[in-house]
Amino acid sequence: MIQRKRLFEILERGMPGDTASVVVDYGIISVIVLNIGAVIISSFNDLPALLKQGLSIFEYISIAIFTLEYGLRVWTAPYKYPGRRFAYLRYIVSFMAMIDLCAILPFYLPFIVGVDLRILRILRLFRLLRILKLNRYNNAVELMAKVFTGEKEKILTTVFMTGLMLLLASSVMYYIENTAQPDKFPNIIATLWWAVATLTTVGYGDVYPITHIGKVLSGVIALLGIGLVALPAGIISSGFIKAISREEQAAKEESLQEKPPEAKRVCPHCGKEIE
Amino acid sequence: MIQRKRLFEILERGMPGDTASVVVDYGIISVIVLNIGAVIISSFNDLPALLKQGLSIFEYISIAIFTLEYGLRVWTAPYKYPGRRFAYLRYIVSFMAMIDLCAILPFYLPFIVGVDLRILRILRLFRLLRILKLNRYNNAVELMAKVFTGEKEKILTTVFMTGLMLLLASSVMYYIENTAQPDKFPNIIATLWWAVATLTTVGYGDVYPITHIGKVLSGVIALLGIGLVALPAGIISSGFIKAISREEQAAKEESLQEKPPEAKRVCPHCGKEIE
Amino acid sequence: MIQRKRLFEILERGMPGDTASVVVDYGIISVIVLNIGAVIISSFNDLPALLKQGLSIFEYISIAIFTLEYGLRVWTAPYKYPGRRFAYLRYIVSFMAMIDLCAILPFYLPFIVGVDLRILRILRLFRLLRILKLNRYNNAVELMAKVFTGEKEKILTTVFMTGLMLLLASSVMYYIENTAQPDKFPNIIATLWWAVATLTTVGYGDVYPITHIGKVLSGVIALLGIGLVALPAGIISSGFIKAISREEQAAKEESLQEKPPEAKRVCPHCGKEIE
Amino acid sequence: MIQRKRLFEILERGMPGDTASVVVDYGIISVIVLNIGAVIISSFNDLPALLKQGLSIFEYISIAIFTLEYGLRVWTAPYKYPGRRFAYLRYIVSFMAMIDLCAILPFYLPFIVGVDLRILRILRLFRLLRILKLNRYNNAVELMAKVFTGEKEKILTTVFMTGLMLLLASSVMYYIENTAQPDKFPNIIATLWWAVATLTTVGYGDVYPITHIGKVLSGVIALLGIGLVALPAGIISSGFIKAISREEQAAKEESLQEKPPEAKRVCPHCGKEIE
Repeated sequence: MIQRKRLFEILERGMPGDTASVVVDYGIISVIVLNIGAVIISSFNDLPALLKQGLSIFEYISIAIFTLEYGLRVWTAPYKYPGRRFAYLRYIVSFMAMIDLCAILPFYLPFIVGVDLRILRILRLFRLLRILKLNRYNNAVELMAKVFTGEKEKILTTVFMTGLMLLLASSVMYYIENTAQPDKFPNIIATLWWAVATLTTVGYGDVYPITHIGKVLSGVIALLGIGLVALPAGIISSGFIKAISREEQAAKEESLQEKPPEAKRVCPHCGKEIE
Repeated sequence: MIQRKRLFEILERGMPGDTASVVVDYGIISVIVLNIGAVIISSFNDLPALLKQGLSIFEYISIAIFTLEYGLRVWTAPYKYPGRRFAYLRYIVSFMAMIDLCAILPFYLPFIVGVDLRILRILRLFRLLRILKLNRYNNAVELMAKVFTGEKEKILTTVFMTGLMLLLASSVMYYIENTAQPDKFPNIIATLWWAVATLTTVGYGDVYPITHIGKVLSGVIALLGIGLVALPAGIISSGFIKAISREEQAAKEESLQEKPPEAKRVCPHCGKEIE
Repeated sequence: MIQRKRLFEILERGMPGDTASVVVDYGIISVIVLNIGAVIISSFNDLPALLKQGLSIFEYISIAIFTLEYGLRVWTAPYKYPGRRFAYLRYIVSFMAMIDLCAILPFYLPFIVGVDLRILRILRLFRLLRILKLNRYNNAVELMAKVFTGEKEKILTTVFMTGLMLLLASSVMYYIENTAQPDKFPNIIATLWWAVATLTTVGYGDVYPITHIGKVLSGVIALLGIGLVALPAGIISSGFIKAISREEQAAKEESLQEKPPEAKRVCPHCGKEIE
Repeated sequence: MIQRKRLFEILERGMPGDTASVVVDYGIISVIVLNIGAVIISSFNDLPALLKQGLSIFEYISIAIFTLEYGLRVWTAPYKYPGRRFAYLRYIVSFMAMIDLCAILPFYLPFIVGVDLRILRILRLFRLLRILKLNRYNNAVELMAKVFTGEKEKILTTVFMTGLMLLLASSVMYYIENTAQPDKFPNIIATLWWAVATLTTVGYGDVYPITHIGKVLSGVIALLGIGLVALPAGIISSGFIKAISREEQAAKEESLQEKPPEAKRVCPHCGKEIE
C-alpha cells in the first residue's frame, strides 16, 4: 500500500524537492504540448506519408500514456479524498478527471460506436487546460478565480442582460431589414449574427443594415456595446480591488496580533500599575 | 375582500413558502419564454401549415393569460399602494404595467385601428424584461441599478459628449469626403453612420474615407473611440468601488455599535475612576 | 456704467432668479442648436428653393445675433477680469472667445479674402461646445475635467506610446507587405491607416495583410490594441477613485473639525486637570 | 581621467543646469527624430534624385554620430557601474545598449555579410524608444512600469489564457469550417488569423464563418473578447489604485514620523511624569 501512496504523491503536483513527482509532472505536460503540436500539424494538407505515419505512431503512444495516467489517478483516488466514501466515483466525476477522460475517450469510441474521429480529436485539446495547474501561474490564477467567483452574480446578470439585448435587437432588426435584405436577415436567429457582430463591435462587414431605421438601430446597439465593455471592466476592477484590500486587511490584522503587548503603565508615585 | 388581497399576494413576487405565488410566478415566466420562442419560430419562412396553426392558437391562449393577468394586477392595485389615492392610475402608468400593456395591446389594436400586427408584435418581447425581477438575480441587479443611478450625471455627460463628437465628426467628414464619395457621404445625417461605426470601432467596412485628410480624421476618431470606452469603464469601476466601500463602511459602523463599552479606568491608589 | 455691468451679468451664466440672464442664456443656446440644425439640413442635396432661401435668411439673422453677442461680451470684458489690465485682450484670447470668434469669422472672411465658405462653416459647430457650460451638467464635467487634468501626464504618455507603436508597426508592416500589395501599403504614412484600423480594432476591411508574417504582425498589433484600451481605462478608473476618496477625505476632515472639543480630563482626587 | 568622467556625465541624462549635457541630450534626440523622418520619407516611391542623395548623406552622418555616441558610452561604462567588475560587458549587454547597437549595426553588416539593408534599417526605429527616457514623461512612465511589473503575474496569465483560447477556438473552427471554406480555413495555424480578428473584435471581414455552427462559435469568441478587454482593464485599474494607495500610505507614515513628540503627561498632584 506504500507504493500506491507514493504513486499518488508522484502524480499530484510535485512538491519542490520531490524529483520523481516533478519529472512526471513535466513529462505529462510535454506529452500534452506535443499532442497540441500534432493536432495542429495534422490539420495541414498534403503532409508527406512519413510524417503522417509518425503522427499516427505518436498518437498511439500518447493515448497509451494518457490511459495509463488516467488509470493510475483513479486507482490512487482514495488518497485524494482520505476518509471519505465513494472516492473513486468522486474522482471520476471531478472536473479535471472529466477533461482527462475526454482526452482519451475519442480514441476508444470508434471501437464501440461509429463516430467521426476527427471531430472528437478536438477534445484532446481540453488537456491544455491542465497547464493552468502549473506552479508558477498558480497565485494569479487563484486570485482571478476568486474574483470571478466573488463577482459571479454580477457577471451572470451581465451575461443575461447581454443575451436579452441581443435577442431584442435581433427581433426588432429582423422586422426592419427583412424586406430590404431577405437573404441577410432571413429570420430572428440568423439576425443574431448581425447583433453579436455589432454589439461586440467586431463588425465583419458581411451583414449590416441598409435601411435608414436599421442603421439607427445598428448605431444604438454599437454604442450600447461600449457600455457592455465598460460593465464587466468595472465589475472585474472592483472585484480585484476588493480582493486586494481584503488581503491587506488580513495582513494588517495578522501584524496587529503579532505585536508585543504594550508596556504596562505604572503610577510613579505609588509604584502600582494603572489599569 | 380577503380574496382580492390574497390574489395580490399571489401575483406579487412569491415569498419563499407561498406555493401558489411561486407557481403563478414561474407559470407566467414560462408563458413569456414560450412567447419569445413563438416570435422567433414565426420569423422563419416556409413553416409547415400545422405549426403555423399551432402558433396561432398559442398566440390566442397567451394573450388571454396576459390580459387576465393585467386585469387582475390592475384590480389588486390598491394593495400595491396602500393608503394612497389614485392607486389604479398609479399602477397603470407605472413602468412595469406599461410594458405589460404593450405586450397585449398589439393584439387588440387591429380591431380598433388598422396597424401592422407584425411590427407591434415586437413589443411583446418587452415582457422579457420582467424576468429581471426574478429573485436570484435581484441583489446584483439592484447594486448595478444603484451604481448607474449614482453615476447618472457622469454617464449622461459621457452620452452627451459622445453625441457631440459624432455630430462634429460627421459634419467635418461630410465636407471632406462628400466630393470624393457622394454616394457614401451624401449628407451629414448619413455620415453619422460612418461616425458611429468608427467611434464604436465596429468598422463594418461599407463606408470609410478614401481621401488622405478623411483617413486622418477617421484615425483620430477611432483613437478617441478608445477613450470613449475607457471613460464609462472608469465611471462604472469607481461607481462599483464606491458602492462596495459604502457597504463595508456601513457594516463596520454597525459592528462598532455592537462593541461592549470599554472597561472604565480606575486609579489604583484611591480606588476612584479616572475620567 | 451701471448698464454695462448689468449687461455683463445678463451675458454671463444666469443665476437662478435672474430672469433676463436665464432668458438670454437659453435664447443663445436655442440659436446655436438651430444653427446646427441648419448646417445639417443644408448638407442635403436637392433642397427646395424656398428652404434654401429660408436657411440663407436664418444664416444672416444668426450671424447678426452672434456678432452682437461677441461684441457685447468684449465690451463687458472689464467686469470679467476686474482690477486686472488688458481685460479686452485677455477676453479675446480666451478659449471660449476664440470659439465664438470662429463661429462668426467665416461669414466675414469672404468679404476680405477669397475662401471657401463651406469649409469654414464647419467652425460654427464649435459653438456647440458652449452647451457644456450649461448648469445641469456642470458638476460631472468639472469632476471629469479634474480627473483628466490630474492624470494628464499618464494620458499623454499613453498617447505618446500609442503614436510610437503606430509608427513602429507601420514601418515594419511597410517592409513586409509593400511587395505583396504595393497599392495598399505604398509607403509608411499610408500604412498608418492600417495600423490605426488594427490597433483601435476598427478593422474596416479595406486594408489588411495577406502575407503570413504580415498577418502575425497584424494579430500582435490587434492584441496590443486590447492593452491599449485597458491602459486608459485603468488610468481613468484610478483617477475617478482618487478624486472620490479625496472628496470623502475632505468631507471627513470637515466633520472632524466641527466636532465639539473633547471634555477635559480632571483628576478626581485633586480636582485639577490632567494634561 | 577627469575628461572621461565629465564625458560620462554629459552622455547621461542631463541634470538641470548642466548645459553641455542637456545640449547633447537634445542633440541626439533630434538626430533620432530626423532619422525617423528619413525612414518615412525614403519609403515613398519616385523621390527626386536630389532628395535621395540628401537622404543618403544624412544616413552617413547620423551613422557616424550614433557610432561615436555608442563608442563613447562603452568607453565611459566604468562610471556607470562604479566599483563593479566587467563594466564594459555589463553595459554592452544592457537593454538600452542593445537597442543602440541595433541602430548602427545594419549599416556595417553589408560590409561583412550580404544582408538586405532595407529590412535591417527598421531596427533604427528602436532608437525611438529612448525618447521615453526624457525627463518630462519620467514619473508617469515609472509609475506605469511599476504597475506592469507588480501585475506581471496576472498579465502573463491573461496572455497565456488568451493564447490558449485562440488555439482552442482555431482548432474547433478549423474542423467546423474547413469543408465549407477550404481556402479561408485551410489549417489550424491559418485559422488563428480568424481567431485573433474575432477575439480582438477587429473583424476585417476577409475571413468569417458561413456555417451555422461556425457563426455560433464566432459569436461566442467575440463575446469572450469583451471579457478579454475587461480582464486587463481590471488588472491595470487595480494596479494603479494599489500603487496610488501605497504612495499615500508612505506619505502618511512619513508625516507621522515628522510629528513632534506628544507633550509628556505630568501627574498634577506630584509634578512627576506619568509614563
